[in-house]
Amino acid sequence: MSAGVELSVREAVATVTLSHPGKFNAMSRPMWRQLRCVFESIAHEHAVRCVVLTGTAGNFCAGGDISEYADFRFQESSLRDFHENDVWGGLQAMLDCEVPLVASIEGNCMGAGIEIASCCDIRLAGESARFGAPIARLGFPMAPREAGLVARELGLNVTRQMLLEAAIFTSADLKACGFLSRVLPDAQLSAELLATVQGILGLSPQAARLNKRTLRALHAPGSALVDDAASYVYADSAEHREGILAFLEKRSPVF
Amino acid sequence: MSAGVELSVREAVATVTLSHPGKFNAMSRPMWRQLRCVFESIAHEHAVRCVVLTGTAGNFCAGGDISEYADFRFQESSLRDFHENDVWGGLQAMLDCEVPLVASIEGNCMGAGIEIASCCDIRLAGESARFGAPIARLGFPMAPREAGLVARELGLNVTRQMLLEAAIFTSADLKACGFLSRVLPDAQLSAELLATVQGILGLSPQAARLNKRTLRALHAPGSALVDDAASYVYADSAEHREGILAFLEKRSPVF
Amino acid sequence: MSAGVELSVREAVATVTLSHPGKFNAMSRPMWRQLRCVFESIAHEHAVRCVVLTGTAGNFCAGGDISEYADFRFQESSLRDFHENDVWGGLQAMLDCEVPLVASIEGNCMGAGIEIASCCDIRLAGESARFGAPIARLGFPMAPREAGLVARELGLNVTRQMLLEAAIFTSADLKACGFLSRVLPDAQLSAELLATVQGILGLSPQAARLNKRTLRALHAPGSALVDDAASYVYADSAEHREGILAFLEKRSPVF
Repeated sequence: MSAGVELSVREAVATVTLSHPGKFNAMSRPMWRQLRCVFESIAHEHAVRCVVLTGTAGNFCAGGDISEYADFRFQESSLRDFHENDVWGGLQAMLDCEVPLVASIEGNCMGAGIEIASCCDIRLAGESARFGAPIARLGFPMAPREAGLVARELGLNVTRQMLLEAAIFTSADLKACGFLSRVLPDAQLSAELLATVQGILGLSPQAARLNKRTLRALHAPGSALVDDAASYVYADSAEHREGILAFLEKRSPVF
Repeated sequence: MSAGVELSVREAVATVTLSHPGKFNAMSRPMWRQLRCVFESIAHEHAVRCVVLTGTAGNFCAGGDISEYADFRFQESSLRDFHENDVWGGLQAMLDCEVPLVASIEGNCMGAGIEIASCCDIRLAGESARFGAPIARLGFPMAPREAGLVARELGLNVTRQMLLEAAIFTSADLKACGFLSRVLPDAQLSAELLATVQGILGLSPQAARLNKRTLRALHAPGSALVDDAASYVYADSAEHREGILAFLEKRSPVF
Repeated sequence: MSAGVELSVREAVATVTLSHPGKFNAMSRPMWRQLRCVFESIAHEHAVRCVVLTGTAGNFCAGGDISEYADFRFQESSLRDFHENDVWGGLQAMLDCEVPLVASIEGNCMGAGIEIASCCDIRLAGESARFGAPIARLGFPMAPREAGLVARELGLNVTRQMLLEAAIFTSADLKACGFLSRVLPDAQLSAELLATVQGILGLSPQAARLNKRTLRALHAPGSALVDDAASYVYADSAEHREGILAFLEKRSPVF
């Protein structure tokens, strides 16, 4: 088995799997580029209504692949290229994903893992998972856009502990600060993931797409959130009619 | 009994009651317009120092009145008019309220109920109350300004679960994310409301008005919060003198 | 003993102590000016890698020194001067501190104490500490920039309870809302402070400085957080090389 970001699409569900055998799925530079490609290709799969993000072999992602670091981190231009193009390219492609993105987190979720999880909408974790970004031990800070993303999702105070103390957190800690949606006994994580995906598949995909668009706009630099020309064009859509008519007819909607 | 938003003013306390018998106080279009009128009239009641928002018959508000939806939701212009004028007109009038606004929440607090509660400053709930905005089942998203308001009060992560999973939350859940100020056994909710209102009436109304002005400015689009010409004009006011002198004289202030 | 803000520097750790005997370390105007001077002098101590903020005699800080208030609070110009120059001068100097700032909180942490704690990165408290800003009893609001700072750190909802209800909170309450990093039995607070400082001293000071710079930029008025020219100049630094090489060589880094 080699390192890579794997995509499998099965009916309306795309599953993206981080895989780096022997390294707890640490992200190499090629894996960051694959992450971007995978999400760009999902954007063209119009039947996909939910994306699952997970890792292989009992881990989510242990961070970056440190064995590569001496190759590019000690020169400003190649360091900038890594963070602004490889890493942010992958993360931005995830943030641009128009359908609900569910993270299923076991084991290590560190550094790059926290950043990737921060791009997901719903975050499920097994109770033994561990979270952190102890890069101050490696002598470097989190890149600005990555830190802005993580601070938005974890809150300022947990982010400070993570970056300034190199603190490691349990799933219970990250449920308490609101980062995790649900924490499960490890053995129940896959059943909860299945139930979560099934729940999302039963809801209106148009509603999800428009809600994600609105929440994304809340964080666009300089944007004042206002109604724009596109906000209400869904009025006459089939899904909108189906949802309301099904309710009035006391039956389940079919989206 | 007919549907409506009722206002009763008794000395310094205004009570606004959502009432829609048989529909768990679901908001009809006329009720949204009444909500606005009620808050506009409270703005002229200069003796009012605290507003209570509640619902009749053991519920806060179950959402919108879906029986009306086929009349206006399937055309873009009437849908926009509903959200931007009726709904936002009511919510904006609440946000403009200059005195502390206390929500007392029992039973269902869904959709419109969450939005109305999001305009309140202090939120009390009975432990059996239930919260959500499962409109993705109805095929439509939350309107942009409404979602921005809800996300600000609930936090991004609970908002995503509410909108993308149609999740329903308990009072304990919404205490944990900071949305609810206090959760009480249902039978103690009315006593806690009374104590809360009495507490607010004992404090300086000028301080409340100025604090609300500052907190509102934090969220005004494009506003950098700075000291402005009006920030310190209270220096020579009677309340300011009374508060400090009473403290120095070791007596209770009379505001 | 007289009132003052004391600075002691011992190797890489600066300790700033609020002291006002008999007044639970309430901040007088001279103390606010000293707070600024102390932090401006720390900025020139290039060996300092961690700052501890604490109070004497079992208290953090009980607020402002109300015995002075009649001298300057009842005139708009002197009131503005107090808040915008004395108070904000001290708080801004703390916010500008480039190294991790750890608050160790016992006893009273009220008003000015909450504002000073809000400028710290890591907040430790004993379980019997008490928190609030009950200035609505004194007839006045929190100044706008101070309220913006406090709301950012406490969250909107706890801030509203603190300002509009004059609510007093326990350490457990402020751990739940994310304000406190860790709550300890009172007798263990000093040991935890020592361990926290030791932990920070073992990490890269360059990483801390750059991470604090990024987190500060997130809140600068009007700033869109982007990579700027200074973001990656650390590439070729000794700390960066040491951190990564030590990891690859399976030894502890020496920063």
